[in-house]
Amino acid sequence: MEFINIIDYIGTFAFAISGIRLAAAKNFDWFGAYVVGFVTAVGGGTLRDVMLDLTPFWMEQPSYIVITGLALVFVLIFRKYVVRLDNTFFIFDAVGIALFTVVGVEKSIVAGFPMWVNVIMGTITGAAGGMFRDIFINEVPLIFRKEIYAMACLAGGIVYYLCLWAGLHTIATQVVSAASVILIRVLSVHFRISLPSLKSIDPADRSGTPD
Amino acid sequence: MEFINIIDYIGTFAFAISGIRLAAAKNFDWFGAYVVGFVTAVGGGTLRDVMLDLTPFWMEQPSYIVITGLALVFVLIFRKYVVRLDNTFFIFDAVGIALFTVVGVEKSIVAGFPMWVNVIMGTITGAAGGMFRDIFINEVPLIFRKEIYAMACLAGGIVYYLCLWAGLHTIATQVVSAASVILIRVLSVHFRISLPSLKSIDPADRSGTPD
Amino acid sequence: MEFINIIDYIGTFAFAISGIRLAAAKNFDWFGAYVVGFVTAVGGGTLRDVMLDLTPFWMEQPSYIVITGLALVFVLIFRKYVVRLDNTFFIFDAVGIALFTVVGVEKSIVAGFPMWVNVIMGTITGAAGGMFRDIFINEVPLIFRKEIYAMACLAGGIVYYLCLWAGLHTIATQVVSAASVILIRVLSVHFRISLPSLKSIDPADRSGTPD
Repeated sequence: MEFINIIDYIGTFAFAISGIRLAAAKNFDWFGAYVVGFVTAVGGGTLRDVMLDLTPFWMEQPSYIVITGLALVFVLIFRKYVVRLDNTFFIFDAVGIALFTVVGVEKSIVAGFPMWVNVIMGTITGAAGGMFRDIFINEVPLIFRKEIYAMACLAGGIVYYLCLWAGLHTIATQVVSAASVILIRVLSVHFRISLPSLKSIDPADRSGTPD
Repeated sequence: MEFINIIDYIGTFAFAISGIRLAAAKNFDWFGAYVVGFVTAVGGGTLRDVMLDLTPFWMEQPSYIVITGLALVFVLIFRKYVVRLDNTFFIFDAVGIALFTVVGVEKSIVAGFPMWVNVIMGTITGAAGGMFRDIFINEVPLIFRKEIYAMACLAGGIVYYLCLWAGLHTIATQVVSAASVILIRVLSVHFRISLPSLKSIDPADRSGTPD
Repeated sequence: MEFINIIDYIGTFAFAISGIRLAAAKNFDWFGAYVVGFVTAVGGGTLRDVMLDLTPFWMEQPSYIVITGLALVFVLIFRKYVVRLDNTFFIFDAVGIALFTVVGVEKSIVAGFPMWVNVIMGTITGAAGGMFRDIFINEVPLIFRKEIYAMACLAGGIVYYLCLWAGLHTIATQVVSAASVILIRVLSVHFRISLPSLKSIDPADRSGTPD
């Protein structure tokens, strides 16, 4: 097992934990929590693969199924201590989205798409799982309202290309791109930096708008 | 028309009725109720086919469009009596998910995927339509919180393989697998068996968790 | 740039504005509002392309990304005046869904599907974006409850075939079909014509129904 697999699995584990915890807060049963955890972990990559016309990555090896199961067992056993581990999970999660972003960009490159599509695919890989999770638990997606999340993925994808243009080797490009995602994510949470909200002055009335 | 088609259509009808009734409870208009009924009936198989890179099954023959229309007409005409038919619909629905599960497993086998993917595809075929329905009507998916539903599909998929390994013929395998889904579903509703809910002891606070 | 492109871009702009405004009303940040605007504009066509096994159209040229960005800038700058432009947006939107419907029907024809699939694909292209938008902002989809929207797309698809059968040339068919969508949409809003709602007499109790 290579180093990149270990990081991939750690990211998957952190994503699954996040889904399972939020499902638990909504009184989902074990199976439902498992499904939400799984969708959080693989949803972004699945959307990417469907749009790139590839077989969803988790259908090619059972590790993602297994890791989500381990995450469920972990939450069941250590639920009292999970809260205290928030900082650890946060780091795992930041590393996970960083890796997912790089993987997403590279899968899209291999599939032959132009740069701007690749950056979007990296962002979707990193951020869409959390969006699906929030739709499943019937909440307005948090990634659209809090801190810098999807933007970190987007920035990582752009940094990926800046490194390529600067002539860096593949591995250096991957590392710098992933590091930029982690850095932006950590800084935005540490300094509570959010994008400005687009507060509406529209009346609440939705009639007359396209629907 | 073969026997399996009749069962398929009955299951589709029961699924569509379920979607239309819940849409009606949310004051959807006729067309919206039709769409929700259709998505409930074909959503699981469509997700399966997209992930298997097949043409969604309902695009290959118009029967599912027609059956959903019949379900809408049925609800419009017999709405006063629909509630009394709950037990009948429940049986139709149980037969439907049983058949959908078997069909899903077999389509995935034909597409060349390993066993564990096939079992998941069977489960998605049987259970994901109800999940889409609940997302459309803006409710937390019921299948994650009440009785044993998706788990019955999962068990049916596993029974399918146990039968294959035991050397049963295809038809016997299909019948035993489908029967096990129906049995689990009926027993779980009759004895009000649910999976334990994963009650959280997390504070409601979502900050700090990956999002 | 041909005339049809201009209409396509105007429709995309109107759809994106609609998504961004509703996201703003929910306090989404800029990026979230952008995503909702983008999904509103391209969601229907993306679902169509995935089901037709085509590459999603917006991945083949960056204009949709750019136009959604312009829509965001427009809302940011002119937010005070956006409400007054409701009637203008309404016309843009009606023209947009009309064109999207025709494009959807024709893409499905080229992909080799039968008539009834093509009409459904036209309807999905015109109407599904608004449905995704409402799921993202965690509302019950408006298109299922208010005025005639998806039905206008459906009617436009049927008119498309009536024109073909009547022997009209392609361009005349496109114009008449699109005009019928716009006309139905304008009339339904002007005279506040809705489809009847399917008011339920079911008890609110969901137990016993398929789930």
